[in-house]
Amino acid sequence: MQDNDPLRSAATAPGVSRYGRIAAQLQRKIVDGEWQPGSAIPAESTLAAEFGIALGTIRQAIAVLVQEGLLERVQGKGTFVRNGLTGASMMRFFRFRADTAAPGSFATGIEPGLAIPRSEILSCRAARLDKSMAALFGLDAGARGLAISRRRWLDDKPRLIESIWLPLPRCEPLQRLPRAEWGDLLYPLLASQCGITIHRAVDEVTFRTLDADEASLLDLPDGHPCALVTRRAYDLQGHCAEYRLTRGDAYAFRYQADIR
Amino acid sequence: MQDNDPLRSAATAPGVSRYGRIAAQLQRKIVDGEWQPGSAIPAESTLAAEFGIALGTIRQAIAVLVQEGLLERVQGKGTFVRNGLTGASMMRFFRFRADTAAPGSFATGIEPGLAIPRSEILSCRAARLDKSMAALFGLDAGARGLAISRRRWLDDKPRLIESIWLPLPRCEPLQRLPRAEWGDLLYPLLASQCGITIHRAVDEVTFRTLDADEASLLDLPDGHPCALVTRRAYDLQGHCAEYRLTRGDAYAFRYQADIR
Repeated sequence: MQDNDPLRSAATAPGVSRYGRIAAQLQRKIVDGEWQPGSAIPAESTLAAEFGIALGTIRQAIAVLVQEGLLERVQGKGTFVRNGLTGASMMRFFRFRADTAAPGSFATGIEPGLAIPRSEILSCRAARLDKSMAALFGLDAGARGLAISRRRWLDDKPRLIESIWLPLPRCEPLQRLPRAEWGDLLYPLLASQCGITIHRAVDEVTFRTLDADEASLLDLPDGHPCALVTRRAYDLQGHCAEYRLTRGDAYAFRYQADIR
Repeated sequence: MQDNDPLRSAATAPGVSRYGRIAAQLQRKIVDGEWQPGSAIPAESTLAAEFGIALGTIRQAIAVLVQEGLLERVQGKGTFVRNGLTGASMMRFFRFRADTAAPGSFATGIEPGLAIPRSEILSCRAARLDKSMAALFGLDAGARGLAISRRRWLDDKPRLIESIWLPLPRCEPLQRLPRAEWGDLLYPLLASQCGITIHRAVDEVTFRTLDADEASLLDLPDGHPCALVTRRAYDLQGHCAEYRLTRGDAYAFRYQADIR
């Protein structure tokens, strides 16, 4: 479906190291579904024999895919294909506190970063993508996408509003899916309905103010400050499969970075 | 000076693996200055002989310290003691644009994330630390610290204001240092004047509004929204050696996170 396949070029490019070429071939097994998410990969010695290479080379190739987050080593159990992206929840950027909670109850409640907000799909329609969005998805100018508007609730309060764009025809199954079957999380849906495993997300955070429509949806005053998270999410092959804008109350924003 | 030395306990604790104990002993060489920042460490075979252990064990121990950011491997050159923290600039949270720059000149200018703002020390005085700050520094209640107020300039505009607390007596040399010798960066100063290598920083970003004094220092209106970065920075032994509050215009805030 895609003309520009980075895996194929890495597997044959003359400038790429031997283990880099093997890494691209192993990645192909994951992308093609030969190695399923969550399953253990064969023993290193088996793979070395299959490719006719030294054990050290297969270890280097596996290390590349561990580094890229496609495989993970589990101490004493083996090497596994990762189950798509974890830790990408928008909630890691916010700390919403239930207004109704008694003082001091915060620390004993559900860890805020782990709570999954309820998702309300406000609209979902096919639309022509603008030129830059089409290019982001690797589609020609004039291509269509799915534009989704979603509101997310926590503690019976509207907390986040999201505008999500997905490429068509890849995500066509979602267009026909009844609202009742969407559930609260998008990525499991992309996997089960469209066969897309989201493997990487790049989030950019800025601050601005809410316009009147946004403020109304979030039950906040017009012009209230908000944190804006702009996300580009990528599948196993490195193609962009989602563009998302998330807005939430700036005063609930909280992010921690650990630098070494 | 410190009663509670995590290195000593890791080096002798019965529950710690052999390579974990060796890692603690190697870390001790860095903390004690036997291995200097920026210098290459001895060959793995030399270290294996020194400790009377297998090459595989020394490699595991080195891997632990690479993981912790104390050592770094340089392809084809060897393993080096890292030169303290890199990539901890507050500027990575902000994108200030020179108002005077010609349109389009942004892309060809200095990479904003790399620019070092000029530092203006507004005040520096010894003061009694509050109880939680003393505890953070591992000091007794009633201990004193150095309270520094600093303003940072870029493109001839005030961009950030910072309140910095440092533990005494560790940072006493800074109290006597003439303002002209401070330079623009704190961590090289902590290293050269106080022998403290900052090795890790934990930054937490939240959002609030500027009070009248802060706004005046930043040449912004009273009540203007600001991003607040709260930093705790740690030395090689894992002791907190700095607490910092940085405030800057919220609309200049920008942070990118890459999740895999």
